[in-house]
Amino acid sequence: MGNRIIVTIGREHGSGGRSIGRILAKALNVPFYDRELISLTAKESGLAEEFIGKVEQQRHIGSYLYDMFVTANTLPIHDQVYLAQSRVIEQVARESCVIVGRCADYILRDCPDCLNVFIYAPLEERVRRVTGEYRDPVEGDPAAWIRKMDKRRASYYNYMTQRDWGKASNYDLCVNSRLGMEETADVILAACRHFRGGSE
Amino acid sequence: MGNRIIVTIGREHGSGGRSIGRILAKALNVPFYDRELISLTAKESGLAEEFIGKVEQQRHIGSYLYDMFVTANTLPIHDQVYLAQSRVIEQVARESCVIVGRCADYILRDCPDCLNVFIYAPLEERVRRVTGEYRDPVEGDPAAWIRKMDKRRASYYNYMTQRDWGKASNYDLCVNSRLGMEETADVILAACRHFRGGSE
Repeated sequence: MGNRIIVTIGREHGSGGRSIGRILAKALNVPFYDRELISLTAKESGLAEEFIGKVEQQRHIGSYLYDMFVTANTLPIHDQVYLAQSRVIEQVARESCVIVGRCADYILRDCPDCLNVFIYAPLEERVRRVTGEYRDPVEGDPAAWIRKMDKRRASYYNYMTQRDWGKASNYDLCVNSRLGMEETADVILAACRHFRGGSE
Repeated sequence: MGNRIIVTIGREHGSGGRSIGRILAKALNVPFYDRELISLTAKESGLAEEFIGKVEQQRHIGSYLYDMFVTANTLPIHDQVYLAQSRVIEQVARESCVIVGRCADYILRDCPDCLNVFIYAPLEERVRRVTGEYRDPVEGDPAAWIRKMDKRRASYYNYMTQRDWGKASNYDLCVNSRLGMEETADVILAACRHFRGGSE
């Protein structure tokens, strides 16, 4: 390796993608960006951190409302947040790092040094994780909650990128984290070792 | 590791899945099964090798013809081949091995020692491989040929298994072979090292 490497991680809700990203960043000795991007985006945009966090959690509004906003000559808030976050992601990706979520694979699509990874897991394992170690405000059936969270992510990603969230061909590597957290990180690490980016 | 491990490899046409499987089997020091399964199936079924090879290459017939055959109280030839091949796959999977294609992930779905892998690659790399090292009888546009071969595989797999061919959640690992043949095998090897099967 030796060159710059940016690992972007997309993940199903409850698959442990964040933990795996953190383990990977530690092993690669590079910065890790997940929720850290919210405070950086707040600084970049002047919007409040709490507000950005909420916008990220919402499904994207429909095209009718979008058109209304655009007609009023101002970008809808989702797009403002997305654009500010894109600038932040482009800045942090000047150096090697691990970035979780936030369409980073798409935002950095012209960067030759990106290894794009998607993490998924069987639903029963995700239910176990969400009802255990996560602090999700689950109401009712955890499986339904997980599906709802995935739908939100897919909706946001597909709208912003015009790609299909979780479709294997968008990624260099898709790993089922039933292998284990450390183990999945190690498989990604093997791919990192062999990854030949474009920069010298 | 130390226990039995069966690696099944599904692959897009032209992704190099067969070469990767061969490298992996050598590294694991276990038998490799791809076209070898055709001669074993011929022995099992009494059908000619050449005939089995052709049946594998055809798209599955529609349900109307299927019903006609079943009504006549004899299984259609696709199903005869599939059943004979299933018995062969179950036999060879008594010991550790690498199996390419032939719905092995589904046939061995109750086997706890299977690591199921899917290999894919960008279309331009697949065109390069199919028009170079492969001996495909390509007529016309190689990209169209590749899509046709993939459609056949998907059609056969989806019909026989009621699953979606190439859908990440069916597999433990999906690797984009643009990493390289040896390199992709090494990533799968990392997953094998961490794989905890069910047998002692």
